[in-house]
Amino acid sequence: MKSYRKELWFNVPSRRGFVNITPEVDACLQESGIREGLCLVNAMHITASVFINDDEAGLHHDYERWLEKLAPHEPVGQYRHNVGEDNADAHMKRQLMGREVVVAVTDGRLDFGTWERIFYGEFDGRRRKRVLVKIIGE
Amino acid sequence: MKSYRKELWFNVPSRRGFVNITPEVDACLQESGIREGLCLVNAMHITASVFINDDEAGLHHDYERWLEKLAPHEPVGQYRHNVGEDNADAHMKRQLMGREVVVAVTDGRLDFGTWERIFYGEFDGRRRKRVLVKIIGE
Amino acid sequence: MKSYRKELWFNVPSRRGFVNITPEVDACLQESGIREGLCLVNAMHITASVFINDDEAGLHHDYERWLEKLAPHEPVGQYRHNVGEDNADAHMKRQLMGREVVVAVTDGRLDFGTWERIFYGEFDGRRRKRVLVKIIGE
Repeated sequence: MKSYRKELWFNVPSRRGFVNITPEVDACLQESGIREGLCLVNAMHITASVFINDDEAGLHHDYERWLEKLAPHEPVGQYRHNVGEDNADAHMKRQLMGREVVVAVTDGRLDFGTWERIFYGEFDGRRRKRVLVKIIGE
Repeated sequence: MKSYRKELWFNVPSRRGFVNITPEVDACLQESGIREGLCLVNAMHITASVFINDDEAGLHHDYERWLEKLAPHEPVGQYRHNVGEDNADAHMKRQLMGREVVVAVTDGRLDFGTWERIFYGEFDGRRRKRVLVKIIGE
Repeated sequence: MKSYRKELWFNVPSRRGFVNITPEVDACLQESGIREGLCLVNAMHITASVFINDDEAGLHHDYERWLEKLAPHEPVGQYRHNVGEDNADAHMKRQLMGREVVVAVTDGRLDFGTWERIFYGEFDGRRRKRVLVKIIGE
């Protein structure tokens, strides 16, 4: 069994945003040399997500509005977590979108349906944060 | 290490529905011959889910109503994604229910609690769509 | 390839609660002797979650209120599942928080960001329930 590990760093300049990280994850897979196995991609921060969905700007706008409706940022005082912080809503948005994805590796490629892309979802940005890529297989 | 891959196809005749796919996934595991490892089951489409919960019709009715409350289909014009499409809500429902499950494989069986069953959750049906089963182990 | 399996048991004395199970999962990893691989931790019950977030009491209070808002327990009669049961909301809260986490194992440790901790999320407690830890690697 082979294993591979890499940290990817992101710095989203706004509080919230979505970044297509499929090319970076694919580059990790090529670097790993693994042909058959599983690829785990997870946020290492608890106010960010890694998820798989469509690379379509309209949908990302809809996600932003929808997440704000289900877990609003303001008023920040509504959350007990927000003592000296203002990111309680980010901890909720991250649960809705998920921490991680596990992707099958087949014949040396990410085994995806037509429209599947991997995104980093930032909900408390404006600082450097990490995503972990771990691949096992052979 | 052994690896196994299979695509399962579904065609849900309505826009939304839940299908118990545990027997199909179990048949994959038997075909793989893998006794110890991990089994990934994921939707290959971004408007569908794979999740684990109860095979109980009342609960599925409740899920349908609940998902419509949190991410309503109509009015379709409320979503920017819905230009020439009407499935933005399906991309949200899929995030609530999840893309994938990872199931332990122990002694050649899906290592489940008493009531755990795997479901395909369709949110934009009436066409053929795929689920990927990938098993690694030995 | 090595594989390891253990069931952890919990009995949360209230209907809902969050338990930091990171030490128990870490003890499993040490017992397994696995240095590189993947660690799956999943609820074996469909009214409970395993998730990764912050070990902060204020946030847990916020999660409790937020989950009650998105999937209220009462009135129990609003759910068709609640025939001789009253836990339909628990099946929904579990979907919001997730069934499982997959954690990278690197150099014999859980490969975590600074604040990542594993929680058992109980939504229908006052009885003994199980979490499965399955680790594969070498």
